[in-house]
Order: sequence, then C-alpha cells, then structure tokens
Amino acid sequence: MIRVGIIGSTGYAGAEIARLLLGHKDTEIRFLVSRSFAGQPYEDIFRNLFTIIEKDCEDISLKEMADEADVIFTATPQGYLQGVLSGDILDKCRIIDMSADYRIKDVSVYEKWYSLEHHSPELLNEAVYGLTEVNRDAIRKARLIANPGCYTTCSILTAYPLMKEHLIERDSLIINALSGVSGAGRGAKIANLFCEVNESAKAYSVATHRHTPEIEEQLGLAYGEDLTVQFTPHLVPMHRGILATEVAKTVRKVSYEEIKDVYDKYYAKERFIRVLKKDMCPETRFVEGSNYLDIGFKIDERTGNIILMGALDNLEKGAASQAVQNFNVMFGFAEEEGIDMIPMVP
Amino acid sequence: MIRVGIIGSTGYAGAEIARLLLGHKDTEIRFLVSRSFAGQPYEDIFRNLFTIIEKDCEDISLKEMADEADVIFTATPQGYLQGVLSGDILDKCRIIDMSADYRIKDVSVYEKWYSLEHHSPELLNEAVYGLTEVNRDAIRKARLIANPGCYTTCSILTAYPLMKEHLIERDSLIINALSGVSGAGRGAKIANLFCEVNESAKAYSVATHRHTPEIEEQLGLAYGEDLTVQFTPHLVPMHRGILATEVAKTVRKVSYEEIKDVYDKYYAKERFIRVLKKDMCPETRFVEGSNYLDIGFKIDERTGNIILMGALDNLEKGAASQAVQNFNVMFGFAEEEGIDMIPMVP
Amino acid sequence: MIRVGIIGSTGYAGAEIARLLLGHKDTEIRFLVSRSFAGQPYEDIFRNLFTIIEKDCEDISLKEMADEADVIFTATPQGYLQGVLSGDILDKCRIIDMSADYRIKDVSVYEKWYSLEHHSPELLNEAVYGLTEVNRDAIRKARLIANPGCYTTCSILTAYPLMKEHLIERDSLIINALSGVSGAGRGAKIANLFCEVNESAKAYSVATHRHTPEIEEQLGLAYGEDLTVQFTPHLVPMHRGILATEVAKTVRKVSYEEIKDVYDKYYAKERFIRVLKKDMCPETRFVEGSNYLDIGFKIDERTGNIILMGALDNLEKGAASQAVQNFNVMFGFAEEEGIDMIPMVP
Amino acid sequence: MIRVGIIGSTGYAGAEIARLLLGHKDTEIRFLVSRSFAGQPYEDIFRNLFTIIEKDCEDISLKEMADEADVIFTATPQGYLQGVLSGDILDKCRIIDMSADYRIKDVSVYEKWYSLEHHSPELLNEAVYGLTEVNRDAIRKARLIANPGCYTTCSILTAYPLMKEHLIERDSLIINALSGVSGAGRGAKIANLFCEVNESAKAYSVATHRHTPEIEEQLGLAYGEDLTVQFTPHLVPMHRGILATEVAKTVRKVSYEEIKDVYDKYYAKERFIRVLKKDMCPETRFVEGSNYLDIGFKIDERTGNIILMGALDNLEKGAASQAVQNFNVMFGFAEEEGIDMIPMVP
Repeated sequence: MIRVGIIGSTGYAGAEIARLLLGHKDTEIRFLVSRSFAGQPYEDIFRNLFTIIEKDCEDISLKEMADEADVIFTATPQGYLQGVLSGDILDKCRIIDMSADYRIKDVSVYEKWYSLEHHSPELLNEAVYGLTEVNRDAIRKARLIANPGCYTTCSILTAYPLMKEHLIERDSLIINALSGVSGAGRGAKIANLFCEVNESAKAYSVATHRHTPEIEEQLGLAYGEDLTVQFTPHLVPMHRGILATEVAKTVRKVSYEEIKDVYDKYYAKERFIRVLKKDMCPETRFVEGSNYLDIGFKIDERTGNIILMGALDNLEKGAASQAVQNFNVMFGFAEEEGIDMIPMVP
Repeated sequence: MIRVGIIGSTGYAGAEIARLLLGHKDTEIRFLVSRSFAGQPYEDIFRNLFTIIEKDCEDISLKEMADEADVIFTATPQGYLQGVLSGDILDKCRIIDMSADYRIKDVSVYEKWYSLEHHSPELLNEAVYGLTEVNRDAIRKARLIANPGCYTTCSILTAYPLMKEHLIERDSLIINALSGVSGAGRGAKIANLFCEVNESAKAYSVATHRHTPEIEEQLGLAYGEDLTVQFTPHLVPMHRGILATEVAKTVRKVSYEEIKDVYDKYYAKERFIRVLKKDMCPETRFVEGSNYLDIGFKIDERTGNIILMGALDNLEKGAASQAVQNFNVMFGFAEEEGIDMIPMVP
Repeated sequence: MIRVGIIGSTGYAGAEIARLLLGHKDTEIRFLVSRSFAGQPYEDIFRNLFTIIEKDCEDISLKEMADEADVIFTATPQGYLQGVLSGDILDKCRIIDMSADYRIKDVSVYEKWYSLEHHSPELLNEAVYGLTEVNRDAIRKARLIANPGCYTTCSILTAYPLMKEHLIERDSLIINALSGVSGAGRGAKIANLFCEVNESAKAYSVATHRHTPEIEEQLGLAYGEDLTVQFTPHLVPMHRGILATEVAKTVRKVSYEEIKDVYDKYYAKERFIRVLKKDMCPETRFVEGSNYLDIGFKIDERTGNIILMGALDNLEKGAASQAVQNFNVMFGFAEEEGIDMIPMVP
Repeated sequence: MIRVGIIGSTGYAGAEIARLLLGHKDTEIRFLVSRSFAGQPYEDIFRNLFTIIEKDCEDISLKEMADEADVIFTATPQGYLQGVLSGDILDKCRIIDMSADYRIKDVSVYEKWYSLEHHSPELLNEAVYGLTEVNRDAIRKARLIANPGCYTTCSILTAYPLMKEHLIERDSLIINALSGVSGAGRGAKIANLFCEVNESAKAYSVATHRHTPEIEEQLGLAYGEDLTVQFTPHLVPMHRGILATEVAKTVRKVSYEEIKDVYDKYYAKERFIRVLKKDMCPETRFVEGSNYLDIGFKIDERTGNIILMGALDNLEKGAASQAVQNFNVMFGFAEEEGIDMIPMVP
C-alpha cells in the first residue's frame, strides 16, 4: 500500500488528485493538507466525496509528512516547495510537484519570469520534467517530478514530433491557447467570479505568461537548439479544457501522410495521445474528465503554414491525471491505473 | 460474457449507456443501433470514444437482435417499444426500456398523457418499474424493466420514505424540479440551441408534464392510496442534473431526528443514496457524472411545511447508470459494477 | 439638471444604476462612491464604460454628499444606511435605498431576520416601499424609498392581483424562485466563483431567506391580513434573471378568463408588466436587460391549484431600473425615461 | 419616415436589426419577411418584443417589397440575394446585405470559396463594402451595401491602421479568432445544440473559412498589394462576441507610442472604436450589446512580434448595429442614431 500525502488538497488540482487516487488500487491517501481548511472534514468542502472519504484536512509540514508518506503531491503556489524542499526529504519520500518550482533548469530564467528567488537550485538538476510520454524512463527513477503546466503539456506535446524532426521553422511557432476557468485556481478573486468570466473571452498575460519559458525550454530540447515561441493564453467560459492552436511555417512542402507518419512514430503506441482522423479538429469536450490529449493538424498550401491543434483537460492531463500517470510510472503500476476514465459527453 | 444491444444509441442516454458498459466487466456491446447514423463509425459521432470503440452504427430490428443479445437497452422515443415488443422476444432476450412505454400500469392513463395507443398492454403487468432501491427483488427476475424517467427518479426517491410512513399529507406535495438541457434530448430543434437556452430559465409543460402520472402512481403505491402531486418542471442552462424541491405539509410537528431516522430506515444501506448532513442542501454538481442521489431536507416550523430536496444526474441515476444498476441486479453483478464513478468537480 | 450620488457604485446594482443614468436626460452623476476603489477611474473598473464616463471613484460620506446631490442611490450592504441616515439628511436630499434597511415596517421583524440592530427606526414609517406599480402615488412625494429586493419584486407583483382579490387561499402560497448569480453580488467569495456555480443548481437559505418577511408583509397588505408564504430560493448558472414559480390553492374553481381579467384590472395600463398570452410561460431571457416583468399562469383543474410564473431581470426591475423608475416618478420624469430598453435576445 | 423591410427577420441578425430599428427615430419597419414563420406574429417568435411590435411575419418577394420600402436589409443565406437582385430593384430601393454575396470584388474568388455561381456579377462593382469607418463616403451614396462579416469586421479594423502604414510584414499576419455561438445562426442543427457546444472549445474550418478572402481583400487594399493571412476561427461557449488575436512581425523595432499614434490617426475621432489603455486587453463582455470595437495591442520585444487584439459583439458591430450604422450614413441620420447602446455588464 503506497502512502500518499497531498499538499494544497483544497485547490482544484489537489482535489482532483485526491479524487483519482480514491479509485486507485494499493494506494492510501494518508494526508490531506490545507492550511485554510485545517480541521474540516474533506467531504464538507468537496461534497462530491460525501460518504466516500472520511478524513479531515490537516496542517502538517512537508518534513513531518515525509516520514509517513511514500509520495507527496504538492499542488501549491509557485515558490512554496523550493523554499522548503531538501535532499534529506527526498531521501525519505518522493515528490510530484504541480508548481513551476523545478520545471525550468536555468534558475535565472525561473527567477526572472516568476519574480522569486529560488532557495534550492541544487535540486533543479535532479528534478525530472514530468511529461510522461517524453521522459518516461527518467520519471521511473526520479525522486522529484516537476509536473508540467496545463498550457505547456498541451502546447509541447502537440508540436513535439514536428520540432524533433525539424519539420517546422525553428522560431516560427505561434501558439494561441484557450483555457477553461479552473486553470485560474480556487482562490477568492473578483476576476474569477461567475459574473466576471461567464459570457466573455479575453487574452491575458500577453507576451508575459510564465508558461512561455517552459514551452521554449522543452521544445528547444526537442529541436536541439534554443528557440522562441509566441504564446498567447486566453480565458474562455468553461470549467475545464485547454485548446492550443499552433501555427508554424513548414520547412518545406509537406503532405498529410508525411506529417501523420511523424506523429505516429512518436505517439502511435501511446495510450493517452490520440491523433485524430484527417480534417478532424479536436474539441475539449471530447477529452473532458480524461487523461487524453487529442491532436489534429491541417496543412495550408496557400500560406505554407501548418496548423496544429491539441486539446486536453487542464485538470487531468494538464495537472492531476498526468501526475498520477507519473506516479504510476514511478511506482511500477500499469500506466493507466486509476486514470482510464472515458471522456464524458455532454 | 453478456451480449448487449442498444437501440437509440446516438441519443444522450443511449450513448451514456454505451460509455458505461465500455468500463463494465464481462459485457460486450454487440449492437449499436441507430437509424439516422447507420453505417457510420460510432467513434466519429461520439469522438470522446475515439480509439475506444470500433463499431459502426447499424439499423437492425429488435426481433433480429433478440437472437444474438442477452439484453437490449431501448433508449427510444415513447411509443416505439410498445409497438414492436412481444412475449416471444422477451423469451429470448431481456429488455431495459428507457421510455415511458411500460412505466404506467393503467393503460388508459398512459394513452391519455402520451396521446398514443398502447399495442402491447398485455406486457404491462409483467414490466417492473426500475427504481432499483424500491423494487430490487422484482428487478432481479424481470424480463422487462421500465426504467424510470429522470424527474421521476429524483422526485419519487426524495419523498418515498416520508410517503411510505405517512408523515406528509397525502395530496399536499408540490414539486418544482429543475433540469439540465440534456434531458431534452439530442434532436435538432431550435428550442434546444445554445442561444435559445443558455442564460435563461423557464418553467414548461406546467400542469401537463408526462412524468406527473408516473410520480403519482409510484408515490401512491408507497402511500397506499391514490394521490395527486403538483409537478412543475423547469429548464435551466446546464448540461446535466435534476434538482427537485418538494414542499409538503407534515401531518404533525416533526423533528429533524425523526425525519432523519425515517430516511435512514430506507436508505442507510443504500450505496447510491446519500442523505446529507443537517442543513446541507444538495447541489447537482456534487452528483454529476455519478449514480448518486443526494437528499437534504428542512423543517419549517413557521409554516408547518417540510422542504425536501433531491439532486441527481439526469443522464446517470436519472437514466443510464440506473439502467446499468438494474442490469447488474438482473444479471447477478455487484450493484456498483461499472457505475462506481465518483462525481467530478468542477 | 438633477445631481445624483451613488454609494456602492462598484457592485453590480450600483454599476447598473450608473449605466442607466448615463442614458437619462437632465441627470448628472456627480458622485460614484466606493471605499475599496476610491481614487480609481470608474472606466478602469467597468471597462464597458471606457470613454463614456470620466470620473474617479471617491470615498465621501453620505452627509457631505447630501449637500451637493438631489438624490442618492445607496447600493450598500444591509445595515449601512440605517446606521447613518437621519431626518436632517433627508431634508436636503432624497434617498433611494437598495438595501433592506427600510423595507420592513416592523423593526423587530427586521432585527430578527437580519440579526442587526436598527439605528433609525423613526424613519421606517416615512419610508415608502418602492414597488412602483403598487405605491406610485406615495413614491411621488417620498423622501426615502426602500427599493424592493429582486426576489420580492418578482414574487409580490406576480401574486399581487390574486391576493388583493382574495382568489387564492391566504396561507397556501408556495414560491420557488430561481436567481441568476449576479444577485449574489460582486464580493470575492469562493462560493461565487465560476467553477463553483457554473453547471450546477441548488436551493439555499431554505426556510430562512431574508426576502421572506418582505414578501409576507407586502402580500399581507394586499390581502388585508397577515399571512405566511413558503419561499425557497435557488441559484442557477446564468448572469441575470429571477423566475418565480408560485403555486397556490384557488378559493374556488376559476376560469382562465376570470384570472386574466383580474390581472388586466391591475396591470393592463402598466408599461412594464406584461401578462403573456394563454399557456405561455415567461422565460428570463425575454426580459433580460429590461425593466419588464413578464407574467404567465396556468390553472390546474386536476389539483385545484393555480400556478403563477413571473420573470424579471434581477439587476433591472429587481434592482437598478426599478430604482430609476422610482426616481422618474419622484422627480417628475416620464416613467420610462432612461429605462425603455428592449430586452436583448440572445 | 423611412420604410424598412427585413428579409430573414427570424434569424439572429435579422431579429437584432428589427430590435434596433424599433428604437430608431423616423423609421418604420414595414416588412418582416420569413418563409418558415410566415403568418405568425413576430412577438410570438421573439417574445422579448411582446407588446412592442405587432406585426406578422410574411412571405413577400424582394421585388414586390422594393415598391414599398426605402431600404431592405437582407439577412439571408449566401447566394440568395445575388440570385434575385437587379439594377431595377436598386433603382427603387436601397439594400443593405448581410450575406457575402457582394463582399468580394473578384467573382471567381467568391465562386471558389462559396461553391456558388454568381448571378449578378454586374452589381459587384457598384456594391460598397460596408466597413463604416473605412468607406464612409462611398457608403453615403451607395445603393447596395455589402455589410461585412463578424470575423472580418473585427479582424480587418484591428489590423487596418498598421497595414495601411506598412508597419507589419505583408504576409505575416496570423489571426486566431473566437466566436460566440450566435454566429452560427438560428438553424436547427445538432452541432449547435446547447449540449454540443457548451463547456467546449474548438477550431473549425481551419484553412478554409470563407471569411479569409474577405479579410485578405480588404487588408490588401489597405496595404496596397495582395496579401495572405492565416485565419483560424474558433467556437467558444458564449452567446455573443468575437475576439480576434492577431500576431504579426513588425517591419522594424517599434514603440508603444508609435503604434498608439498610428491607431489614433485613424480612430481617435471614431465614436465606436476604442483603443484601450496601455497593457489592457479587450474582453468581449465589455462590448456586448453595443456597436463598439475595442482594440488593445502589445509589442513583444523578445520575439519581434506585435500582438493585436480586437473585441466586438458579432451580432452588433459584426452584423446588425453596423448595418444600422451604414443605414444612418446612407439616409443622413446621426451615425449613432438607434445604436448608442452602452455595453451591459454582467
């Protein structure tokens, strides 16, 4: 029985990890950590879990927990984990971190984009970027997983094979991504009230969104050289879902079959990545509640561009279910254990 | 391996049955019947199932199918099944019917409320009303299940214990129910377009909704006498969910504990009915995607009324998952097999 | 030029009053009061008004403002106005209060339902309940208007003629009302986040909602005797709208024509109350953005009940536009000045 | 009194034109044409107009109507108008066409993208593209207005000044646009049901959307040379709104002030185009229900790109209110007559 702790268990990602693990075999949720809700029954906060989990939230430190847990999921704000984590803790307990604290290898890039000082840069090298399909082998042995962001998982995996194969021009990638509101978290902010976001769409953090360097680093690794992308996130009125529409110049005239083959080379055996049929565009509803990433693409001969589209559920493949996928890899479970949900429509 | 056929497989309820059965053990979906989509791959229509099911829709008669299926789910319009069903077919194959064709024992009541002639009234007596928690024993042996409607499952189960125990005045029940839009089906109608139902609420079929006689019949059976209810359905802009708010006169002054005990008497051992903590009101989001019915109640001493509230997912406990629950009872599976989904929030 | 001040101008109701008055003739918005946003350009907070209003929010006391304003709208929390208002202030400036502070004549009822001590009960008698269609004459001369709540305007006006004419049994009225989320205000609360209210419906404040005594007092006045109603509010996922479904026993068998005549007696000449055609049910979308109240009704001969339905926009007839309607009556404008918006669909 | 006819009056755009004209001075709606709803009271179909308009839909030909109308708005499917219009009709009556029939000067481009034969190409030259801010003078005298599409109005006006001034590289424009569902029309299609589009986002018509050549033609005219754009439309779950996010290479390093000056040069005096403050991004909710186009932009020095954002209401500036704006110009009304609505929030 794997003993699990979840810090930040009352946010949307933390709660989704808890929900998924309740259906996961040989796993015991031992700690549901929340400072704000300490002492309250978890089922009172997430009443979907009424009668399903009988545990109170508690306020316990990472260090203490490490003695009694085999793995800790940290669904915490940027800056928390890097401020408290140490090699000693990792000797006792593996960590899957949902924040950006260990995603970016270059500490100066992290410090610049997040306006935070990094207190444990010595762990950056050891941290494995938790894009399961890309880093599966390293994940298996990792003590510390930097679980990717929602926009980034979608943006990177959608373009990865073409970048890897140098089929698109290095700096030509323009990503417009749409996110559901759960990506903005469960904090009490006017900006995320129903009446502020419903029936509206907007771009935000234009040219400054913090997922940009993460996307650039990973796609640069795939390409083999540093590169830049133009990433523009948007908020649209739905609970869940990321849709990334990526436009890039192809390096030469390409055919549908050629591109399809490249995708198949990397993803044909992947359980959770589905490259759709020709001319089908992914829709977020068709992956909602699941660990799937759906990909579609279209070659525009008029313009010489290729348009790539990826859709995933930001709380699942973009956060919680990918974290559990990594957990499965790390602890030797079948990769789909606990996360083989079939998307629910409508 | 139980062989299953689904008629009306491209409606929302039929598709949900298919989705649930894909995760059900020892079960094989053999027929996905749809006249309008015959010949099309099912995964092209419900693209959430892409790579998960590889079957085409087909147009095959109930009679033919009965030879090769152990059970058939009919998610068809009112009037279809009663026009084609016979005892011969039931000799070969059990049927779980999602329509109203066999729900009402009194054929004249059916014919009046549905403006249809009934062509197989001889089967009415044998049909078992598929409210699992009420009729479990009869369901076990039934050849023909009349699976209850969404409004009715919610309305009846919420009031059932108090009716059974004569704690509320016989004809005093006033039910206001709210439904998500999926209850209106997947037909191409202007009235159900996004721009016609979003950002609006309305009552409809006031004093004439067809679920009324079904509610009255079942609650009358519980009470032991015929009774009337005032049932008013409403459409609200969400995909899934029924919320029934039921106001009734109590026959005398009652206490919270007394009512709670009555609910516990009937439901404490039920896996899928949750009576919430004191003063908690059910919310449809907390049962979404699951087979749960959540119940809350409040005694108003000022008025002498009790207010009962029930929430379920109209496509699950109000249709597909209750159908599978009945299927499990009929075929000796664990009652939660394939339907132990934990509600997903948000 | 009438000089206007708005206290609580950055809430939804206050902002709607401002928006309406920008299109109102002979009116000047002189003060936009907001403690939290003082010093900020109003157009930065409500960017729909960008280039339309060039004024900063300020933090100025009611007393000071009274010297420079002809009328002050107070869209403030319960308890604020009754704590600061005095006859002296009313000698200088008329007030239209959106809170409940002066709605209930019996101070003990107010203090009980709102758990607040009332500091200016001497003004209760003078305050006029601002249901324009009912109290037009008194409003004309009033110094202090208690503008009705959203649920109450809808609930009262829908039942008023039948109560007045003693056509329904005194204590039989059962009101189920649905509200859009803007009714919950613009405060930063988790409970009103998009991801907490979207795709869900719930009842709340069952048997304890503060609009109950207001409805009872006004309908009691209409009826001529004290009475009780069972009022159950619900939250549904839309911005705007109140839909009240009211069930009552008729005192005797009544006909459609008879009821229609009674409604016409009271409302035929009212510009902003529309009694729909036979068998039509009001929908909130058809009054959205307007000052209209739409009413429908249905007699159920089976049960002896009548079902009344009213729909309005909670921020308009349920708050801001009714306040402006009262303002028009008080200052001798045409009653529709500034509020003759045609509902916008979709 | 200008006599108006509206063909296609029961679609969303046609109905919005009717609603706007009901508040327009010196204008009489004489014909509400609809084949499907002929004979029905218009207020029964659009019940927001109950008691406001008392006219039945009728089925009358363009030709007949031309004798009794001064202007006809055609909110009809592509191909209708070009099949029936003639110079004779235009001699009697001016026409504002909401379809694409006369938007594209090159008949072969129209025929290719719309897969339709054009039956009145001789009128193409005379037709004026109804982008009011660009073609005001020509509109004044025009007999035939080709009112622009919703995506196109937004896409073109947002980029127009920079194209005109050659500040962005000719073929570098990549437009991602989000549309509310009303843009898909009021036809009874499964794809536009609430349960098919709510809680989901998708790109569609990738590389093939018919607004592409219209955008290219107009921006090419501004630039002075033919050009191509990569236009990708998306559907998001809201009623109204277009948000266009446009990324382009700047021809050289540019400053905020420089770009702001260019926008001011073209738009500072425009009543209905608002260039937002620095770093503010437009949101569709802030223009909803109005004729405004809100524009924001951001220079990304890292990438050498500029990101332009435009937001409008697809049924207003993207259809109906721009049509009325053109009508005002044509008939000598103040340009804001009947369309000076202040956006409504929430």
